[in-house]
Amino acid sequence: MVDSPYPQAATERVRFVLSNTSHPGNIGSAARAIRTMGFRRLSLVSPVSFPHVDAHVLAAGADDVLDAAILFDSLESAVGSCSLVLGATARLRGVALEELSPAEAAARAMEAASAGREVAYVFGNETSGLSNDEIKLCHAAVHIPSDPSYSSLNLAQAVQVLAYELRMAALAGTPPRKGNTDEPATAAELEGFFEHLAATLHDIEFHKGRSETTIMQRLRRLFLRANPDQRELRVLRGILADAQRMARMTRQDPTD
Amino acid sequence: MVDSPYPQAATERVRFVLSNTSHPGNIGSAARAIRTMGFRRLSLVSPVSFPHVDAHVLAAGADDVLDAAILFDSLESAVGSCSLVLGATARLRGVALEELSPAEAAARAMEAASAGREVAYVFGNETSGLSNDEIKLCHAAVHIPSDPSYSSLNLAQAVQVLAYELRMAALAGTPPRKGNTDEPATAAELEGFFEHLAATLHDIEFHKGRSETTIMQRLRRLFLRANPDQRELRVLRGILADAQRMARMTRQDPTD
Repeated sequence: MVDSPYPQAATERVRFVLSNTSHPGNIGSAARAIRTMGFRRLSLVSPVSFPHVDAHVLAAGADDVLDAAILFDSLESAVGSCSLVLGATARLRGVALEELSPAEAAARAMEAASAGREVAYVFGNETSGLSNDEIKLCHAAVHIPSDPSYSSLNLAQAVQVLAYELRMAALAGTPPRKGNTDEPATAAELEGFFEHLAATLHDIEFHKGRSETTIMQRLRRLFLRANPDQRELRVLRGILADAQRMARMTRQDPTD
Repeated sequence: MVDSPYPQAATERVRFVLSNTSHPGNIGSAARAIRTMGFRRLSLVSPVSFPHVDAHVLAAGADDVLDAAILFDSLESAVGSCSLVLGATARLRGVALEELSPAEAAARAMEAASAGREVAYVFGNETSGLSNDEIKLCHAAVHIPSDPSYSSLNLAQAVQVLAYELRMAALAGTPPRKGNTDEPATAAELEGFFEHLAATLHDIEFHKGRSETTIMQRLRRLFLRANPDQRELRVLRGILADAQRMARMTRQDPTD
């Protein structure tokens, strides 16, 4: 995560705690999920089966996370050193806890972690979720706003979404995406292209019976929306030049 | 999704397309993922095994999505009616496509869907991802900014993240972009234009000494970014037809 504005250590101060997980495969999938998002710390509270081959199969290469997982016999001990504990809940069940969206939770978590605080994201059992005693240990609830008519996120998928938002928060403020790296064309270059385009339309006799003004307005709007870079403009002008060359050859035809 | 500012129908205009999926369990997990986020439309291009009991086991109650899944034998036919096709890619592999973050893709998708357009999110095979031919059918790439040192998101987890961002966009609501009110061109119409463009470049002898593939990739990217409407496409094709006519007249020149 060299591209994060947070110190490397910030992401290392966030741990994922899975409590009373029934299926070891879910532990493996969760390990994979957090690893893809640049996190490594996994704590397990009284898992039903761990270590287990299913965990390693589903970790799909994120074995380093599994191998470094720490086992606890209570959530209290697993989050003992944390000053921010966020509990993933399917929905608020009349619990007197502040409820955060995944993005709000992530912002708060990265802020705390970058200030040197230990942060935990806590996930309960696949079927029953966090118990009331476990929720009491949380400082806020994180709720993924799933469809009320079908809110059954798999444990690892919930971990994936919350880890994804954490990564977004960690990367926030990073420089622009790639994909269009050439220098954008300047306004003057674009005007030069439009003049060339208009001249070419004349040369290839496009305007016959058509309103030149309307057509050019439409084409301007299209190309301005595309916001071509300099290389793209060179390609377009190359095409125009060849179309003009063809038109010139036609006119040079002595039988014309 | 009564709580969304978008009409119910907008989320129904977004389809998830899984191409060449190897493991039926992943199809089930993907069905569950999209259902939790309020989506229902799943299309399958040449899945290795479907229907399959593993799909239903992992769908965990989202069987309605599986039962309504539509099978196709090519990605082209699966996205034929779509005017926005977004391809999930692990990273840009020198592909001449605009790259969007999951949130940017979601905003664009919900904007298109709420304007009545059909939208597809496309996911390739678990191991090999989208093929180059499949990527060519996409109007933009969506990249989940995973940790470069371990970017191996499971298929269903990638679906979950992108569907989650779609749901966030649907719940947040973004005002539709103005200024382009004609019917957008469909994927099939755009492909027709690109074929016409490629043929015209040949006719006007543009390719001499240039890499045809690179040029067409660059032009595809430019025009896909511009997202032309049907009227604009008619103007562009009219220009191509006139350029071709000029080239034909040149060749008919008896003195040639």
